[in-house]
Amino acid sequence: MISKNKIKLLRSLRLKKYREQNKKTILEGTRLIDEAINASAQIDSVFATKEILHANQSLAEKIQSHHIPLDMINQYDLNGISDTQHSQGIIAVVKTSSFTIADLPNGLTDHIIILDNISDPGNLGTIFRTCAWYGIKSIVIASGTVDPFNFKSMRAGMGAHFYFNHIIIDNNQSIIDFLDADKFNMYCADLKGKDISKVNVNQKWAIILGSEAHGISSSFQNYDKITIKRSEKIESLNVSVACGIILEQLKK
Amino acid sequence: MISKNKIKLLRSLRLKKYREQNKKTILEGTRLIDEAINASAQIDSVFATKEILHANQSLAEKIQSHHIPLDMINQYDLNGISDTQHSQGIIAVVKTSSFTIADLPNGLTDHIIILDNISDPGNLGTIFRTCAWYGIKSIVIASGTVDPFNFKSMRAGMGAHFYFNHIIIDNNQSIIDFLDADKFNMYCADLKGKDISKVNVNQKWAIILGSEAHGISSSFQNYDKITIKRSEKIESLNVSVACGIILEQLKK
Repeated sequence: MISKNKIKLLRSLRLKKYREQNKKTILEGTRLIDEAINASAQIDSVFATKEILHANQSLAEKIQSHHIPLDMINQYDLNGISDTQHSQGIIAVVKTSSFTIADLPNGLTDHIIILDNISDPGNLGTIFRTCAWYGIKSIVIASGTVDPFNFKSMRAGMGAHFYFNHIIIDNNQSIIDFLDADKFNMYCADLKGKDISKVNVNQKWAIILGSEAHGISSSFQNYDKITIKRSEKIESLNVSVACGIILEQLKK
Repeated sequence: MISKNKIKLLRSLRLKKYREQNKKTILEGTRLIDEAINASAQIDSVFATKEILHANQSLAEKIQSHHIPLDMINQYDLNGISDTQHSQGIIAVVKTSSFTIADLPNGLTDHIIILDNISDPGNLGTIFRTCAWYGIKSIVIASGTVDPFNFKSMRAGMGAHFYFNHIIIDNNQSIIDFLDADKFNMYCADLKGKDISKVNVNQKWAIILGSEAHGISSSFQNYDKITIKRSEKIESLNVSVACGIILEQLKK
């Protein structure tokens, strides 16, 4: 059975400060943990109730066959760790790894997505899933964007986090300095700009996705703007939907 | 000031049964109400706190210039109506209009999106925004899909509801019978199928979007399947992201 101290440590991971200190976060639920194992995430340990293991025997066997330490926990203690109202009965402690932009090796990647002021963890997670779907390997968390390792971002990402080579967290100026020097062609996704279905984007690109409410932040305003043509005067497309449409177009 | 009976009526609109009886629902927040007015939604009345009207004078003027009845409400009463934890201080009562598939006039539309088992109101709202962006005029709510007029669906739709000519709510068999007879080419969006970037879709089409967790329901399984090619073995794309990618492709 899990110790009081361990519960306290796991509970502290709700806060960004402690996630950074420990380089760990928490995954909740059978589906997410299953995805994480499939994607070779570095899982420290799993804590589960008897009931959930009984109801999910193939996951229980997978945890065992991957030699992941497994400990029992009761529903009460689990609820104290989880940030959902109804915890699913299983959590995993997983190593997080993030980089600064200077860590990105030259020539490793030609395609980068930059998240500028994306404050909603649900949107962030959905963007991560979309980027993973299209094989993006480097994703950049710019100023004002929610922590990609908070529990809700992890849940919404549904395992996508583990498909990236580099999750980069840095400030806007460092990002700009590095990518300019490295000859990336930077484009802002915006309500006005060149129609993405007609634009010729250079081979080596970084796309900046901004906040739905406030658009691209001033740091990035000087770059070329691309847009998704609309039929109606509707306010905005969801940022993760825009991300998918842009990546499908750029695939060609 | 709003009466106790009126509060009771508005509060009842949280439940689908009363929304259907009254053919009304509630919009919450300045941005959504502003979008609804812009889209010529049929707004019965607005209830707001003094504070929010003071802080949003251009919206207050817009409500007045559109001759929409406006009544004061206090924050306590508002919290009793709203289903959010922190109500924004303003709600609007708006007429809903829905149709059955048999109401769809022949030849009116060539492009239909069918939502099959979309249970999350956030996803539904984001799909509505995406469809409105691409000028889709008829959207079909098939069995198992969340009520498009619940408060959360309305919030997530951000006004998109008011851009459609027909929001159709019907059962799967009626939908199939009608669209087959009307010579629509039906396609299911699925994990396996013909690559959407390469497929030639007939001019008159209906796309069926299914549940992320359970896929397309058995009623629709016999139709051709289209898919979005992926780079990684990641479980699934968010259904609203898939909707955007498909509509961008079909635009051509």
